Amino acid sequence: MEFLKILGCGSALPIGNRFPSAQVIKDKERYLLIDCGEGTQLRLREAKISFNRVSHIFISHLHGDHFFGLPGLLSSFHLLGRTKDLFLYGPKGLMEILELQFKLSGTVLRYNIIFHEVKGSTKTLIMEDSSIEVHSFPLNHRIRCSGYFFQEKKKPATILVDKIKEYSIPDHFRANIKKGDGYQLSNGDVIPHEELTAPAPEPISYAYCSDNRIKDSLKEKIKGVDYLYHETTFMENEKERAKKTYHSTTVEAAELAKKLQVKKLIIGHYSARYQNLEPLLEECQVVFGPTILGYEGFKLSF
Amino acid sequence: MEFLKILGCGSALPIGNRFPSAQVIKDKERYLLIDCGEGTQLRLREAKISFNRVSHIFISHLHGDHFFGLPGLLSSFHLLGRTKDLFLYGPKGLMEILELQFKLSGTVLRYNIIFHEVKGSTKTLIMEDSSIEVHSFPLNHRIRCSGYFFQEKKKPATILVDKIKEYSIPDHFRANIKKGDGYQLSNGDVIPHEELTAPAPEPISYAYCSDNRIKDSLKEKIKGVDYLYHETTFMENEKERAKKTYHSTTVEAAELAKKLQVKKLIIGHYSARYQNLEPLLEECQVVFGPTILGYEGFKLSF
Repeated sequence: MEFLKILGCGSALPIGNRFPSAQVIKDKERYLLIDCGEGTQLRLREAKISFNRVSHIFISHLHGDHFFGLPGLLSSFHLLGRTKDLFLYGPKGLMEILELQFKLSGTVLRYNIIFHEVKGSTKTLIMEDSSIEVHSFPLNHRIRCSGYFFQEKKKPATILVDKIKEYSIPDHFRANIKKGDGYQLSNGDVIPHEELTAPAPEPISYAYCSDNRIKDSLKEKIKGVDYLYHETTFMENEKERAKKTYHSTTVEAAELAKKLQVKKLIIGHYSARYQNLEPLLEECQVVFGPTILGYEGFKLSF
Repeated sequence: MEFLKILGCGSALPIGNRFPSAQVIKDKERYLLIDCGEGTQLRLREAKISFNRVSHIFISHLHGDHFFGLPGLLSSFHLLGRTKDLFLYGPKGLMEILELQFKLSGTVLRYNIIFHEVKGSTKTLIMEDSSIEVHSFPLNHRIRCSGYFFQEKKKPATILVDKIKEYSIPDHFRANIKKGDGYQLSNGDVIPHEELTAPAPEPISYAYCSDNRIKDSLKEKIKGVDYLYHETTFMENEKERAKKTYHSTTVEAAELAKKLQVKKLIIGHYSARYQNLEPLLEECQVVFGPTILGYEGFKLSF
């Protein structure tokens, strides 16, 4: 996974330049879109992300600020001539909404949507390929809501070309050396794998939690995560409102990040009442220093 | 009707600062919203139009660029505490889409949507109050599509205060004078209504036609209209494409306006292929001089 880019991290009411939830992960040449609030297609254009490279879309739940941009985006894919399959993950009912709209507008898509209904009360593997694994896990909100856990796979070591030259190693040995082998010279000496390669960077992981009233059981599901996005809809003095609306406060999210010992906590999904977000960041940082403020256009290179 | 403001006049693919269809008419203290493409709620905010003053919404048809902003706007009304009834006009299926989304998101609106299904193959009165009448009429598009005809009612004459003073006319005669009476002096002479009042400005009318492949039968339905908004998705050299997609060209819209002898033709719903809109305007003006280019933020005072 190359980077995370936030396209929107407001909550239900769009204000000014704060847009409803949407973010992308760039992984190799493709983009994984997470949530798709109203206007996401415009944000993707602004970020110069080619629509055709959006390969997977993950929708957390059916509150409008997390998916009202999806019908428009899928229509635009169609109008722009997409033929590539699109993989869509989301709760029961999502395809029903889309299919009704396509039917009533007389739209027959030129591409396939391969829909995976996200369900269950445990952490569940929903996607896997040579590069990453994605698990869904249940969040605690007013309606069924899922978080997503993106885990990079371990990459093979990088072959050191100078060493290959130094020991005159023929090309056809490279594949096995990449996998972990050493190389035996004609005199019988073995050059160990570690001398011939540079280790790949450690695979990283990212978890997306929006919207969520933190429960103790969440920790187990995202244990070991490197980068955590967690909503902080409210500041600590609105804790009662957070409870009532099944959201979290700054301090609650920061405490979770601290317990999990994540590398970074990225916050977002701010209530429209907060014009200035610095106080939210400060409240988090008192508890957990490596907190970063998510905002429209924010990019985190992994 | 005080003015028309265009919030979006792009077509299916949003590009740059061209947004999908939406416009408002200000009439007294309320706004009538016509179509509601994705992002309309942001455009309304930018135009500083209070959501609570949007009293009526008219949706032409169920292609996404004309209504994908509606679920978000109606949700925002709810979140902002609206209790005032909302009058919604649109084709069969519109309420089905909205109700499914509200159900799946667990939303129970705090206000009533009073839905009027627009149907029929003739011009039909769908709304009337002391200020205006609104008729729907069928357009010729790939799916059921309606235009809307807004007709102001004749306003009463304005009483000339100086004349009231000059003839010492008691206050309780005013109402009848406004309605058309004159005033009889004690000597038996009658001061005619026309001397005591200034006539109200002529009531004006506005017709909204998007999306539409012009048929001859349309003229009869919008005969006498003062201001006509008609789509010009394509320039004249794309006439075949216009036919195929049930749209109109610049010249076709201008010819219609000329036949109807409207005061002004406002054009819009431009294909995303046109970055520069001046050539579209020029093509119209060759046929019909009083053509105006619609654009985001365009305001026409009636």
